[in-house]
Amino acid sequence: MNRRVTMASRPAGLPRESDFALEEAEVPSPGPGEVLVRTRWLSVDPYQRSRMSTAHSYAKGLELGDVVTAQAVGEVVESNDPRYEPGDVALGQLGWQDYAVARAGSLRQVPPGIEPQLALHVLGATGLTAYFGILDVAKPVPGDTVVVSAAAGAVGSIAGQIARIMGCRTVGIAGGAEKLEDVRDFYRFDDAIDYKSDDVREAVKNACPDGVDVYFDNVGGEISAAVHARLNVGARIAICGQVSQYNLERGQPTFHPATLIVFRARMQGFLVTDYPHRFGEAIPRLARWVMNGDIRYRETVTDGLENTPRAFIGMLNGENRGKALVRVA
Amino acid sequence: MNRRVTMASRPAGLPRESDFALEEAEVPSPGPGEVLVRTRWLSVDPYQRSRMSTAHSYAKGLELGDVVTAQAVGEVVESNDPRYEPGDVALGQLGWQDYAVARAGSLRQVPPGIEPQLALHVLGATGLTAYFGILDVAKPVPGDTVVVSAAAGAVGSIAGQIARIMGCRTVGIAGGAEKLEDVRDFYRFDDAIDYKSDDVREAVKNACPDGVDVYFDNVGGEISAAVHARLNVGARIAICGQVSQYNLERGQPTFHPATLIVFRARMQGFLVTDYPHRFGEAIPRLARWVMNGDIRYRETVTDGLENTPRAFIGMLNGENRGKALVRVA
Repeated sequence: MNRRVTMASRPAGLPRESDFALEEAEVPSPGPGEVLVRTRWLSVDPYQRSRMSTAHSYAKGLELGDVVTAQAVGEVVESNDPRYEPGDVALGQLGWQDYAVARAGSLRQVPPGIEPQLALHVLGATGLTAYFGILDVAKPVPGDTVVVSAAAGAVGSIAGQIARIMGCRTVGIAGGAEKLEDVRDFYRFDDAIDYKSDDVREAVKNACPDGVDVYFDNVGGEISAAVHARLNVGARIAICGQVSQYNLERGQPTFHPATLIVFRARMQGFLVTDYPHRFGEAIPRLARWVMNGDIRYRETVTDGLENTPRAFIGMLNGENRGKALVRVA
Repeated sequence: MNRRVTMASRPAGLPRESDFALEEAEVPSPGPGEVLVRTRWLSVDPYQRSRMSTAHSYAKGLELGDVVTAQAVGEVVESNDPRYEPGDVALGQLGWQDYAVARAGSLRQVPPGIEPQLALHVLGATGLTAYFGILDVAKPVPGDTVVVSAAAGAVGSIAGQIARIMGCRTVGIAGGAEKLEDVRDFYRFDDAIDYKSDDVREAVKNACPDGVDVYFDNVGGEISAAVHARLNVGARIAICGQVSQYNLERGQPTFHPATLIVFRARMQGFLVTDYPHRFGEAIPRLARWVMNGDIRYRETVTDGLENTPRAFIGMLNGENRGKALVRVA
């Protein structure tokens, strides 16, 4: 049988476990050109929350009863496409379930020799998001002050480390003593701000005596407003996420566009899914940085598909340390 | 004697004539390297309103009793610098007054053969603002749909015409039947929206069946929110002004940065004062477009320095048709 986690009701605010249902269904059969994959690892990410709301977004939202969207890596069980054979490890949008059928062309091979779950974070979507957000959108130059929000998170921690590799001074914003320690000591940001205990406006001012050249924004809202107040002329703001807004019934406008005139600044949104033509450049560079220790990562692993909603809610609550993953089998 | 219009009290909301005072002072004497200029034409512009508030901006605000900041063209009366001699026509930040002393290096010669007031708009700051906002910030390509707010205004009308020259489909937003007629028939936008009588969201949808590739924004607020809802992937928003905010005691945040993720869009602020190194490229191109009829302009002229506050308030109220100017002498 195939166990599947579906959206049972549309969450209001922070999702509850009762918003999800664990269902059983037949294991699906792959058609021509399709592959059946057994999930090994799956990813819980902030963007999944926005798929659960009815607000306009870049992707189709979930309907009640749909399996929750997620990237996962798994083992090919059956293949009707010459590109895959049983035993291969593949990455795809497989969802929160034990088994999924996917078009072979929508999957990517995970090469042997790397831990497969790395394809879900540092060598996958989160690493690539950080890579293109920093290098293609924010484009920092050596000496720039780069501020990252959600800096202990899966994307933010890598964004900060890539900026550090580029010769920038990096300042991370995160919540709580444990995450601050990660930001400062493990991910080696030059300075760290605790949005839960610091006066963020004052702290940004102190941590960025030369102002802010780049802001890699995962959160939006009040934290971001504090950073906007310290921008330099010519600053670049990469909008990666706005997690402070995802649990709101109706997001509040949080930004004064006139700020961009004052600082002749640029604010730009991006999606990693727009860069597949450059994954072949980015993944080997990320892999090299992981191998030589320039990029470090942490994982918070939850065991069991049935515990995925709990892992997801915990991640939205900031309980994870590094990339939140579910080990399915 | 030198008559000067000063800020007598800080305006709350829309300025009133009583916020300004007409004072008399000695005609100043130029020191070494300085020039005395007698004002002929001066400019009233939305940015002057923001100089009157205490909000953080890109330029120093006015103090009570200061002559109001303004670009003006005038005739050189006395010169202590070899670059100018009496009778020359010069452009500079001379303020709302009959006479001003300026460093020769801060002035620009207005060549004989053009009407001198054109150096205050289509061949000066407003034309250059439109030029760099469209060509350097928004970067439209032929076939793009370009929406301009305050499209009957001094900057917006030129921005739309430059986009038209670039082969774009242009849609102008303005208020009232007379301005709509200007936008459509005189400035030759492909379509026009009346924010005073149309449902702006519906009207943007109808006027932009292929979505919005470029938004040249002079206003912010609700009108801009209606445009943001129809952006295309990869859209560019040039933030030229946010005049809907200038009269507010405290501007409201009006924008959801998450919009930029949805459309992988870029929002960028700019100031014409950052482009002096490119004026030599831009002014001859603007002049050529004016000469061959590709760029048309209108002027609303008020006579008399003493009527400058009224002209300024009328411009903020949208009573002018085209560039608002004061003829001083």
